[in-house]
Amino acid sequence: MAHRPLNLAVLDDDAIRALLGWPDVIALIDAAFAADARGQVSVLPVVGHSLNGGRYSIKSSHLRLGAGEDTLEVFGLKMGSYFPGNLERDLPTHSAAMLLGDPHTGQPSALLAANAITEYRTAAAGAVAARHLARGDAAVVALFGTGGQARAQLEALMTVRSVREVRIWSRSFARAERFAERLDLPGVTARAVQDGQHACDGADIVVTVTPAEQAIVQRAWIAPGTHINAMGSDAPGKQELDPELVAAATLVVDRRAQSAALGELQEPLARGLMREEDVHAELGELCAGQRPGRTSDQEITVFDSTGVSLQDTALAGHVVRLARQQQGLRTVSL
Amino acid sequence: MAHRPLNLAVLDDDAIRALLGWPDVIALIDAAFAADARGQVSVLPVVGHSLNGGRYSIKSSHLRLGAGEDTLEVFGLKMGSYFPGNLERDLPTHSAAMLLGDPHTGQPSALLAANAITEYRTAAAGAVAARHLARGDAAVVALFGTGGQARAQLEALMTVRSVREVRIWSRSFARAERFAERLDLPGVTARAVQDGQHACDGADIVVTVTPAEQAIVQRAWIAPGTHINAMGSDAPGKQELDPELVAAATLVVDRRAQSAALGELQEPLARGLMREEDVHAELGELCAGQRPGRTSDQEITVFDSTGVSLQDTALAGHVVRLARQQQGLRTVSL
Repeated sequence: MAHRPLNLAVLDDDAIRALLGWPDVIALIDAAFAADARGQVSVLPVVGHSLNGGRYSIKSSHLRLGAGEDTLEVFGLKMGSYFPGNLERDLPTHSAAMLLGDPHTGQPSALLAANAITEYRTAAAGAVAARHLARGDAAVVALFGTGGQARAQLEALMTVRSVREVRIWSRSFARAERFAERLDLPGVTARAVQDGQHACDGADIVVTVTPAEQAIVQRAWIAPGTHINAMGSDAPGKQELDPELVAAATLVVDRRAQSAALGELQEPLARGLMREEDVHAELGELCAGQRPGRTSDQEITVFDSTGVSLQDTALAGHVVRLARQQQGLRTVSL
Repeated sequence: MAHRPLNLAVLDDDAIRALLGWPDVIALIDAAFAADARGQVSVLPVVGHSLNGGRYSIKSSHLRLGAGEDTLEVFGLKMGSYFPGNLERDLPTHSAAMLLGDPHTGQPSALLAANAITEYRTAAAGAVAARHLARGDAAVVALFGTGGQARAQLEALMTVRSVREVRIWSRSFARAERFAERLDLPGVTARAVQDGQHACDGADIVVTVTPAEQAIVQRAWIAPGTHINAMGSDAPGKQELDPELVAAATLVVDRRAQSAALGELQEPLARGLMREEDVHAELGELCAGQRPGRTSDQEITVFDSTGVSLQDTALAGHVVRLARQQQGLRTVSL
């Protein structure tokens, strides 16, 4: 059998951004997590490797969403990396690309830049979690971190809650100020704060999106009724929340195994403050209606996001389908 | 940090074939296995997934070969698939593509078709094994299988031994005849044979390169002094050799763990005929001079190839470097 040339769809970050809007992405990510809880998703083990002061990870999955003509079935992988030393090289610290394969023939079908996909899928998971876990009247947000994903977190949250105030904290106050000045979201007051406790004081939702390796949000700062989206931890040794806070809260994770290995469960488990069974639910169980979300206005809820391949694969498959419906799909022949 | 467009090198199978020659590829694969035995290679766990009658696997690794300006350091992954039902769709049953990443910045650096790479790296491993394990005067080859990799196996063997006769067996005698007619290798007589035993009778080297799931070569057919390259088994349930033959031979594998999970060790282990400690060596230990190859003209030796990511990554990194030294490198921007 001769190997005929394959034409892979190619989408860069700009093309992907042009195709995506928050309400659609959030609905898709909600559906993907629900499918996961119903057993329609295979998430393969995450493979990771540290080298030269950085780290690569490979996340892959196969999923089938919807039914009939609208079925979205995709096999995909994302090769992502985090090289903090890139800051000194004036290069982004995070890089990512995805390869998709046809689920019926095994042939490679698409190559995608995955910075925009990572940003959208991560922020959408935060919004899905907030829809199930934040109080309905939540309006004040404390944002920890001003990196590439910070703005997307706010945009996605605004799709599910009426945000009117954002307090921004960063290790560098100057960076927090610059971020607040540039934010310019309609109807939202933004200001930088010097310390994390002030950011949390009166906040309804706390969002952490940093590469921290020790707690930047303390148990004592968090009032009853608060919801926290801990989006940053996604590798061994990373941690954003006081383990006492995680142990005291109603904890929802994207994936139990990943949260224990890469996320906010690492430290509470290591200290004996929690067992894996103490996790209230995986996000998909909330999306599928199998477990309740917030049950009282006094509850402290935490969503720990480590980033699951099903988010990448669902969104990549979705955006390739959108691109195929339009003119001018770029391809590369192999 | 803005994400600037990345330019990935793009190589299709034709471009790769045009850049590669057997002596170089065999030397590179020998060096890569030797580096593995010396601990200079990280092979990450293989991730596999079955779906819709086919199977995807993702193999990844990081390696550093050589020193100084000539150092070849690569991080790479291969997404490969095997969909036997593709025969009815007039599509190839095997498909594969590779993504490489810069080992110092984490940025995706190349996209490669990987059919030619798989063919070259697999056949080169067979040649490296034959160089260490086949008798120096080996001249008669029994070839089981007439698929995409069969011809490459012979070409690579001819680089390390003076092959003058090839007997070809296939489940379909007509296919074996067609293959023999078209083979046309200089100085080599080729003929199709109706049964496997006749192929092996008087053969110095037996090569199996099929998707068989039960033994196609029996213990009783193999004379003292024969070397066998079992190239086909690379997934759970695959098997080409009589387990009694594997147990009686001096067994060299590409990777112990992979041979036990995906290769010819599966069945002898399951039947209690061998323990993993009974493996004589990994191929890299022979290449690095840490373990002896063939020690007598009477020994029966078996090399079991499951295909290790280090072969793909080494060869992909090598071919991208060759391509960059030439005019007209194709790129795709992400």
